[in-house]
Amino acid sequence: MSAPAGPPQGRAAPSGGGEQSSLRGETIRKLVVVGVGLIGGSAALALKARGAVESVIGVGRSQPNLDEALARGIVDRALPLSARWTAELADADVVLVAAPVAQYAALFAAIAPAVGPHTIVTDAGSTKQDVVSAARAAFGDALPRFVPAHPIAGSEHSGASAATATLYAERTAVVTPLPETDAGAVATVRALWETCGASVAVMDAATHDRIFAAVSHLPHMLAFALVAELAARPDAALYFTHAASGFRDFTRIAGSSPEMWRDIALQNRDPLLEEIDRYAARLAVFRELIARGDAPGLQRLMTEARSARHAWANGKRTAD
Amino acid sequence: MSAPAGPPQGRAAPSGGGEQSSLRGETIRKLVVVGVGLIGGSAALALKARGAVESVIGVGRSQPNLDEALARGIVDRALPLSARWTAELADADVVLVAAPVAQYAALFAAIAPAVGPHTIVTDAGSTKQDVVSAARAAFGDALPRFVPAHPIAGSEHSGASAATATLYAERTAVVTPLPETDAGAVATVRALWETCGASVAVMDAATHDRIFAAVSHLPHMLAFALVAELAARPDAALYFTHAASGFRDFTRIAGSSPEMWRDIALQNRDPLLEEIDRYAARLAVFRELIARGDAPGLQRLMTEARSARHAWANGKRTAD
Repeated sequence: MSAPAGPPQGRAAPSGGGEQSSLRGETIRKLVVVGVGLIGGSAALALKARGAVESVIGVGRSQPNLDEALARGIVDRALPLSARWTAELADADVVLVAAPVAQYAALFAAIAPAVGPHTIVTDAGSTKQDVVSAARAAFGDALPRFVPAHPIAGSEHSGASAATATLYAERTAVVTPLPETDAGAVATVRALWETCGASVAVMDAATHDRIFAAVSHLPHMLAFALVAELAARPDAALYFTHAASGFRDFTRIAGSSPEMWRDIALQNRDPLLEEIDRYAARLAVFRELIARGDAPGLQRLMTEARSARHAWANGKRTAD
Repeated sequence: MSAPAGPPQGRAAPSGGGEQSSLRGETIRKLVVVGVGLIGGSAALALKARGAVESVIGVGRSQPNLDEALARGIVDRALPLSARWTAELADADVVLVAAPVAQYAALFAAIAPAVGPHTIVTDAGSTKQDVVSAARAAFGDALPRFVPAHPIAGSEHSGASAATATLYAERTAVVTPLPETDAGAVATVRALWETCGASVAVMDAATHDRIFAAVSHLPHMLAFALVAELAARPDAALYFTHAASGFRDFTRIAGSSPEMWRDIALQNRDPLLEEIDRYAARLAVFRELIARGDAPGLQRLMTEARSARHAWANGKRTAD
């Protein structure tokens, strides 16, 4: 895996075990994954499946999860956060932080003084401006070798037991370099996600947070809000009894982890608040059209929505 | 198919071709389906598959759709709305109106003077208070033999070509009798939907409209509003490019028919406006929790939503 190797959208072509550093050669000799759950564990499995990494060290909070990661061959060695895990960083080529974003400040503070002069640090968090702020506060001279990233993949399952080598196949990984970020470090992280099967999109952190506030964070809030509203009613059972397939699809994301989405909402607060306000204003337009019985206006807006939805769904590779 | 036969939740046990009227015997001798689309066509197919109907007359706007209904054996004879179709009603046991609800007033005005003294009229509309109003305006002395109903089933496909005998299997059909409605007529309509495979729930029209405003009509408006909001942006493509599986599920119902949902929104206006207002207030609570960084408050609401969603999904027969 190499910075200069291959075109931007190309796939890395790993060739087992070179002797050079990850910035010059074609494999990652030593990868440290902090947080060996679905996201970090799947990246490790994908890189191993492609022969793109020689050794993976897993670091995590939960010993049973680390044991599972060892048993499944996701990591070659495992260290709990209570051990001296930062001693593993000096000769690491890449450190992938895939822990809950709320832990980043503490993790970055531990990682920054321990990395080697060529170690690249990257992350997999769902929000990026807050991660950049935490990185600026922690990394100092190592800041150019920190590459903020967000692989767009997930599942209702979590933990090392849910990790798969194919999680990132045909997905997108967003990379949001800082002005200071080293181009070679960006190329390495790009190659890492491309090796995992993803396409890489590069944008600034503010654009990332604005886009995902709209297409991911907002819909989650909207779904949580609908189910919360119905569940709070004294006669909630009457409503749920008659909910059908449309309700099922619409509210599926309200089954997501409250801890994770609480953190995302708070970490991406300003872009999300703006999206909520824009959405509330749009909903008020629908309300007004319904209230005054404006059939053509309502049909026009609905038709625009349906056309956009169909165009989007038909352009997607995944089945709709 | 018979009023007195069987317990309320039981399945009708059709026995091919009796000589008695549908109110006394066990089959419908003559069924007239006005609107032979997905909903009306599927009912006809299901009743035929169970041997519960002897003859089905289809009435509709589109000759190609009627030809399709004939070719598929959904109907035995077909008449366009431009023909003298009301002459078929005098000896009909049951008339099932399954046309768009916006056409009901005109259809009821044509049907009311033409029905026989034992003909039962029922419908399959998604809203009920407006249908009851239209029926009260049209039916006069025949009002006790009009049974408002709403089988809860649908598909993104439409027309006779989409009809199946199994559409109503394990679904619910809601029946909303008026105070004046004849108990025998209700029992016949109940047996009709049970024969199609559905469970029947009986409630008043206002309760129906309130429930479905919340669990069906509101989610459709919310999904249309989200996609309309994004589609209206100059940089809409940037957002859609990065929308993923959560967005796909959340917005699936925004691919529904604008004509149909425009009509439902306007016909169920007052209950829907109340639901929109309650929802907007709940969304404002989420907004406030995010704005002031209230992590415990946000997590509590999200957890209540997730628990309710999981309890609902786990209690449903359909796979989630």
